Amino acid sequence: MKSGLSFLIAALRSEIDELDQLSRTSALVGTIGRLVHALQRERGISNVLLASGGQRFAAERSAQIAECAGLEQAVRECFDALEADPRRLGNSARLFSRIAWVVPGLDALPALRQRIGALQMPASEATNAFVKVIAGLLAVVFEAADGATDPEISRLLVAMFNFMQGKELAGQERACGAAAFASGRNESVRQQQWLHLIESQERCFQVFSEFSGPELEAQWLAHLPPAQTAELERLRRIACAAPAGVALDPELSPVWFDCCTRRIDAMQTVEERLAADLRQLCTVKIGHARGELANHETLLAQMAHQPAAASSAFFDQPDAPPVAPATSGAPAYGRQLERSILDLVQDQAQRLQAMGDELDTVRASLNERKLVERAKGLLMAHRRLSEAEAHKMLRQTAMNQNRRLIDVAESVLSMAEYLPVDGKP
Amino acid sequence: MKSGLSFLIAALRSEIDELDQLSRTSALVGTIGRLVHALQRERGISNVLLASGGQRFAAERSAQIAECAGLEQAVRECFDALEADPRRLGNSARLFSRIAWVVPGLDALPALRQRIGALQMPASEATNAFVKVIAGLLAVVFEAADGATDPEISRLLVAMFNFMQGKELAGQERACGAAAFASGRNESVRQQQWLHLIESQERCFQVFSEFSGPELEAQWLAHLPPAQTAELERLRRIACAAPAGVALDPELSPVWFDCCTRRIDAMQTVEERLAADLRQLCTVKIGHARGELANHETLLAQMAHQPAAASSAFFDQPDAPPVAPATSGAPAYGRQLERSILDLVQDQAQRLQAMGDELDTVRASLNERKLVERAKGLLMAHRRLSEAEAHKMLRQTAMNQNRRLIDVAESVLSMAEYLPVDGKP
Repeated sequence: MKSGLSFLIAALRSEIDELDQLSRTSALVGTIGRLVHALQRERGISNVLLASGGQRFAAERSAQIAECAGLEQAVRECFDALEADPRRLGNSARLFSRIAWVVPGLDALPALRQRIGALQMPASEATNAFVKVIAGLLAVVFEAADGATDPEISRLLVAMFNFMQGKELAGQERACGAAAFASGRNESVRQQQWLHLIESQERCFQVFSEFSGPELEAQWLAHLPPAQTAELERLRRIACAAPAGVALDPELSPVWFDCCTRRIDAMQTVEERLAADLRQLCTVKIGHARGELANHETLLAQMAHQPAAASSAFFDQPDAPPVAPATSGAPAYGRQLERSILDLVQDQAQRLQAMGDELDTVRASLNERKLVERAKGLLMAHRRLSEAEAHKMLRQTAMNQNRRLIDVAESVLSMAEYLPVDGKP
Repeated sequence: MKSGLSFLIAALRSEIDELDQLSRTSALVGTIGRLVHALQRERGISNVLLASGGQRFAAERSAQIAECAGLEQAVRECFDALEADPRRLGNSARLFSRIAWVVPGLDALPALRQRIGALQMPASEATNAFVKVIAGLLAVVFEAADGATDPEISRLLVAMFNFMQGKELAGQERACGAAAFASGRNESVRQQQWLHLIESQERCFQVFSEFSGPELEAQWLAHLPPAQTAELERLRRIACAAPAGVALDPELSPVWFDCCTRRIDAMQTVEERLAADLRQLCTVKIGHARGELANHETLLAQMAHQPAAASSAFFDQPDAPPVAPATSGAPAYGRQLERSILDLVQDQAQRLQAMGDELDTVRASLNERKLVERAKGLLMAHRRLSEAEAHKMLRQTAMNQNRRLIDVAESVLSMAEYLPVDGKP
């Protein structure tokens, strides 16, 4: 029969296990970030190659494909290591399911590249293929963030996911704008899509700022020189604020592309820093938990050499107050042993509760995203809308009704059964 | 390098692992239920023994203590088995922390019984000691329900927890009423406490009905013969509706006690049925998941003997629609293999998402409880209120402002920092 202290230790071991797993998922997220960055570059290069009829960027493309292959290998190794580990995170099933979804996408890259190299597909189709693989990789990151059980790590993972997502939207905006300028004229559909990409991006960076902490946010702002931002906004205005049908200067296409590329490359350095912070945080947390475990194990060994105490302290102990903050500091070994174990148990319970509460707060931002995505999906399926149209519809409703986007999304979901299917009544 | 199908299988294995763990936690919950029932009886018997100055129930008490000891042993074995298993549920840390809290309470029972046997404590103190141990056991059940990752199992665990909690409140009401009638007069404080016990009980049974499904609810209603309910309500009215200070007939004390006991024993049979349903559900689910796993593994073996297909199917596949219901039925092995794997991946992703959504719904009821408990705890700590007073204050505010209890609780929590500490401004 095991003592209360044994279960205290079991709880701590569970925490350490979870932190170990989180540390590995965090490393995976960093690796995915690098692959995504490389694929974003390959997407841009492939576009130029296709648009120029094979005249430009052929050599750059070969080098970029080689870089992607190396990073893809690293990501796959992380996936395989995760699969081989018998320990599982709480949401392993969903994480593996996301991985199962994206791996065939990675498998399909060589065939895609062959068709691009042979100039056998339009640039837009190539773009969509890369967008799809990258979305699959980001879905893995989302699940990693959603599965984190430590609030501080979860916070950084949420920041990371939103930053990566914002960066991907910036990449899509680069492609969208380059095509718009190159085409020489404004189109209303493309303008809508473009504005949607800007808006979604800003939402992502807002959430990033909210969760990354002041230091990382400052670094992010430092990477955005005002002159560069001004240039970006000027080009955006030229293309988006003009009425549809107005001519655009095709010479601005490379100017736009370079301006966006500088911005995206700057994002990559912030992302690397975020990934490093994440690894560092995991290491510190694991070290701290292991230290606590060693203390508890010493205590357990002490107990084994003591006669069983008359155990009435339990009933003298006040009920664990559900909200009070955890008391910190080293456990009081000098006091009566049994009593101090009850204190430890109470401290741990309060700490776990405080962690659970904070985790709920952090996850709320992910839930918001899930709800909005589901409402969009519902509108796309039931009203045959594109993703951008569905988003616009939700946003418009929110503005008209002066409600938050998430509230409108909830209303849409709660009315799901009243919506017609595929145009049928 | 592993294929998408390998990760599909890994996701399924994770699900099976979780179901295995849930199956064991469910067994633990059933065992805890029996121990709680026995402790509730021991509490009642001990009360009578102390109130009668050792004249009544001495023999019954010895038998009851023996029964408790056997059931306690069974619960401890479940705890130990959980600790010895290297596989962990998502919320293992919190579950172990709850166990660590209650084990010293079980350790302290022999000393408590000794004092009761020597008539060295008042009945109210003995009652409180049992209440505390039982609350600790129920907290373990709560954590088990909160950690369940399968929505159907989670649903039954939530029903189970609420039923057990309601039954415990019924037990406390029995003690409260017996003492009130025995004292021969009405007291306003006791009336308040009594009404609080009735109200909280009813809330628990409401949640139980919501989550248990029609069959169990019908069984529960069948166990409440109208004549018995009428008798219970008549006695409640006599004691609670009369103005404070009015005399009560002490002869009604045993009548009340027997009436409550019949009700509580009936609850126990419903609880046993719930526990059996829970075990059955786990078995069915595990069997189903294992069958699916076998199918997938056959498919994986088939793939190993096939040449690698030209893998462009990924890009032809529509994006996984975020909301559409999972398509059911056997996987189409006759179709092109690669394509069917993508379908499987998509089906699984949708199924996991639907499960996640449903789980959120089920957990909402637990979150509600957590919020109300935390708000009560805050009021107790900051305004030096008893639990019943804190509950009454919340309820009164909700009635006055025509808001839901949970909304008032949220407001209280969001104002935490404005509240004075221990009477200090």
